[in-house]
Amino acid sequence: MKNQLDDHRTARVRALKWSGGHAAAGEECLAAEEPLEIRLGGRRFTLTMRTPGNDEELVAGFLFAEGFVASAHELGEIRRVRGPDGKPELNIVDVVLEVPAAALRDRLKRNFAISSSCGICGKTSIESITRRISPPQGQVRVTPQTILGLAAAMRTEQKIFAATGGLHAAALFDLTGKIVALREDVGRHNAVDKIVGWALTAAMIPLSNNLLMVSGRLSFELVQKAAAAGVPILAAVSAPSSLAVELAEESGTTLIGFLRAGSFNIYTHPERIAP
Amino acid sequence: MKNQLDDHRTARVRALKWSGGHAAAGEECLAAEEPLEIRLGGRRFTLTMRTPGNDEELVAGFLFAEGFVASAHELGEIRRVRGPDGKPELNIVDVVLEVPAAALRDRLKRNFAISSSCGICGKTSIESITRRISPPQGQVRVTPQTILGLAAAMRTEQKIFAATGGLHAAALFDLTGKIVALREDVGRHNAVDKIVGWALTAAMIPLSNNLLMVSGRLSFELVQKAAAAGVPILAAVSAPSSLAVELAEESGTTLIGFLRAGSFNIYTHPERIAP
Repeated sequence: MKNQLDDHRTARVRALKWSGGHAAAGEECLAAEEPLEIRLGGRRFTLTMRTPGNDEELVAGFLFAEGFVASAHELGEIRRVRGPDGKPELNIVDVVLEVPAAALRDRLKRNFAISSSCGICGKTSIESITRRISPPQGQVRVTPQTILGLAAAMRTEQKIFAATGGLHAAALFDLTGKIVALREDVGRHNAVDKIVGWALTAAMIPLSNNLLMVSGRLSFELVQKAAAAGVPILAAVSAPSSLAVELAEESGTTLIGFLRAGSFNIYTHPERIAP
Repeated sequence: MKNQLDDHRTARVRALKWSGGHAAAGEECLAAEEPLEIRLGGRRFTLTMRTPGNDEELVAGFLFAEGFVASAHELGEIRRVRGPDGKPELNIVDVVLEVPAAALRDRLKRNFAISSSCGICGKTSIESITRRISPPQGQVRVTPQTILGLAAAMRTEQKIFAATGGLHAAALFDLTGKIVALREDVGRHNAVDKIVGWALTAAMIPLSNNLLMVSGRLSFELVQKAAAAGVPILAAVSAPSSLAVELAEESGTTLIGFLRAGSFNIYTHPERIAP
């Protein structure tokens, strides 16, 4: 049934299309979704459903945004695991971290502690997270006109979305509104991880002079990832959640939502947006 | 900053609204997002970010769809944990399962095994999951006209979405297209878990004579949850992923995407849709 394109990021499937009271058989191009197993030093660490492509960036960004590595150096080596036939497996990567075992144990424990304390209330988890995030530095300023241009610029680069009509995206911009990098994925958090991972390996972290935009909505998790990467301004096509706004307020991030033709809302730290 | 409504499902925040070249201070109503810690017999089991409300349904549906409980009886008791002040905590629930310890250990182990095998390839994970899902029974048939009516019926019931413009929904319909239940949440998978949990405690599982519709896109995970609940027809406003289509094919689910005014696509098992 499936006939993937060479790049594994889309798949063509048969579909019956109902329209105007009639059914017609056809083909549809879908965004690919596949599991990715992430191993640390050969041991299974986590599993994420993602759109294949830029997997090394995804792994790097995930490990950085979650606080398991603090630098590109600590990432060490990201390898494809080889199958019994000697060929690289498409859906398994193994990371040999350059983090001393004791430090890694501490970080795993701390990460678990943060997740645990989340259960008590949003406030506790926000405090735990903001403790390990430095507020964005410098006096970044952007005009409302620049903000208004982001959505259209992003859409023209969403090539898999254009082909499939169903994929999230995250785009990194410079302060003039020019796209620096764009990644697409079935998971919005994966698209952001890919951007952060790309920036980490390109020695661009903290992203103090960049804007990040995501398709769709803004959850707590996305603000956490953007703040960990030092992004001062985070924008989205649609609405933020209540906890996304709270974390943005605490972490010093300018949060913009409902960015559409001619209008947008600023929820936190509006001082960075001025004509 | 936050001023939650009584029902905790929305929150009002201040926002600066840019439109037509001018900024105006105002207030926005946002969908609430809060962490929910799920404990099993007093021990922390998992944590999910969700929109508060119908938490017991969310927990019931999650445990059922993931294969930890097989019936409403096994759910036992779902309790609010009490804080030091004796008041129930809003974000912690404890489940005392009626599952023998040995059986629960096996299910936890099996669930981990399934997640592990996911890493190898989508095929393996689909096989693991379909082994524990019975294909929908009976000869359900629905007209294209009924399908075309679902989207409008769902939208009229999305009350938090109407207030916030930013929330996912899942709606359960009978075979005539009448809404039986609708749940909203910042997470699409949570909205589906709430529906499944509601159906489980109402002794309606398997949902052999129902249609399920979700806002937005269809991932692998959503098809898995719908199939576990025995839903024969699953529809979405937007696109399915490649793996969602593969699992629907294998699990015997009719999968419908891009359900919009006057048209929709059928990706799998189209025999259930006929004029």
